[in-house]
Amino acid sequence: MIFIRKPIKYYYHYPAVVTVVVTKAEDRVNLMSVVWHTQLSSDPPLYGILISPKRFTHKLLKESKEFTLNFLEYEDYEIAAFVGRSSGRNVDKVSAFDIELSEGRLVDVPIISRAYAAYECETVDIRDYGDHTLFVGRILGVHYREDAFENHLPKVNTLLYLGSDTYTTVDTQERVKYGKEEVERFLKEWLGKNEYHP
Amino acid sequence: MIFIRKPIKYYYHYPAVVTVVVTKAEDRVNLMSVVWHTQLSSDPPLYGILISPKRFTHKLLKESKEFTLNFLEYEDYEIAAFVGRSSGRNVDKVSAFDIELSEGRLVDVPIISRAYAAYECETVDIRDYGDHTLFVGRILGVHYREDAFENHLPKVNTLLYLGSDTYTTVDTQERVKYGKEEVERFLKEWLGKNEYHP
Repeated sequence: MIFIRKPIKYYYHYPAVVTVVVTKAEDRVNLMSVVWHTQLSSDPPLYGILISPKRFTHKLLKESKEFTLNFLEYEDYEIAAFVGRSSGRNVDKVSAFDIELSEGRLVDVPIISRAYAAYECETVDIRDYGDHTLFVGRILGVHYREDAFENHLPKVNTLLYLGSDTYTTVDTQERVKYGKEEVERFLKEWLGKNEYHP
Repeated sequence: MIFIRKPIKYYYHYPAVVTVVVTKAEDRVNLMSVVWHTQLSSDPPLYGILISPKRFTHKLLKESKEFTLNFLEYEDYEIAAFVGRSSGRNVDKVSAFDIELSEGRLVDVPIISRAYAAYECETVDIRDYGDHTLFVGRILGVHYREDAFENHLPKVNTLLYLGSDTYTTVDTQERVKYGKEEVERFLKEWLGKNEYHP
């Protein structure tokens, strides 16, 4: 194992699912792809995204208090690259990249029509962490394409980001279920053998 | 597209990379797998993990102020399931599941020897979001296995979680690079055709 102190550039925790953040302020719709994001809470349903203050989306998010998160398939990596590597300050991304949008149901911000899932969010907290800002969205509603899921688990070629402008996807042929039941069976055997008293 | 208001259970943004959080308090080492996590800042290097207050790890994290994050390959899904679906309150996971550990370099918390990458962190912020707590770690150092990366991009079968105790991995045969250069070429052509003045 190699060890580095005080890392600056590090992709060791990648890949990450790409989400495209859509914002709208003063009738201007903007899109930006983000790979630093996570669910924060189940109930209430909260989701966090990290945005650099340098980005145009940062300004729009501060103005509008609403956004949508859009999840794309691997085949749409160009959309993610387009909206990630250009700035809404210089170009109207929706028309330049010809991105089809659908209206939001509970927010005045659209979703990407090609997304297989999209979350409508209202901003409930904004907090700076180092060189980025955490925008916390309360999920008001979820859109999803029925054929993209099986027993609520995604079965599509989800778009993943590896770092350095490189994209990949999941191996849809490879999956395994291993949960509470299997773990309890293992522990019961182990406890029997070792006379362990928890 | 199907639309749901006020979702409670939703896996539409999965898969997510699994990270195993290792904690140590009063000479007791504990491990827990987590899929709600994200980088928060590049400089300083900050990383956030979400932990339910119900979990034993929550208590240990509040006591020790140090932890490590460990990234595993798909073949190690049993380790993730074991430490995710059992509680350190009832079982000593390290001995029960026979998990080999190596000493941390800058923190008094071990890393998992089989991990292909691991981050050593010190807790710099703790904040509740809904039913979970965000623990913010400053990354003090990074371990990585040289053969697991190529030009800093992971090339291993990263362990991904799909929801409902189901694991999958990346398609290591499939990757594409599409970045600033390609986007600028596209925009230049588009600008030429549309006489767009940003």
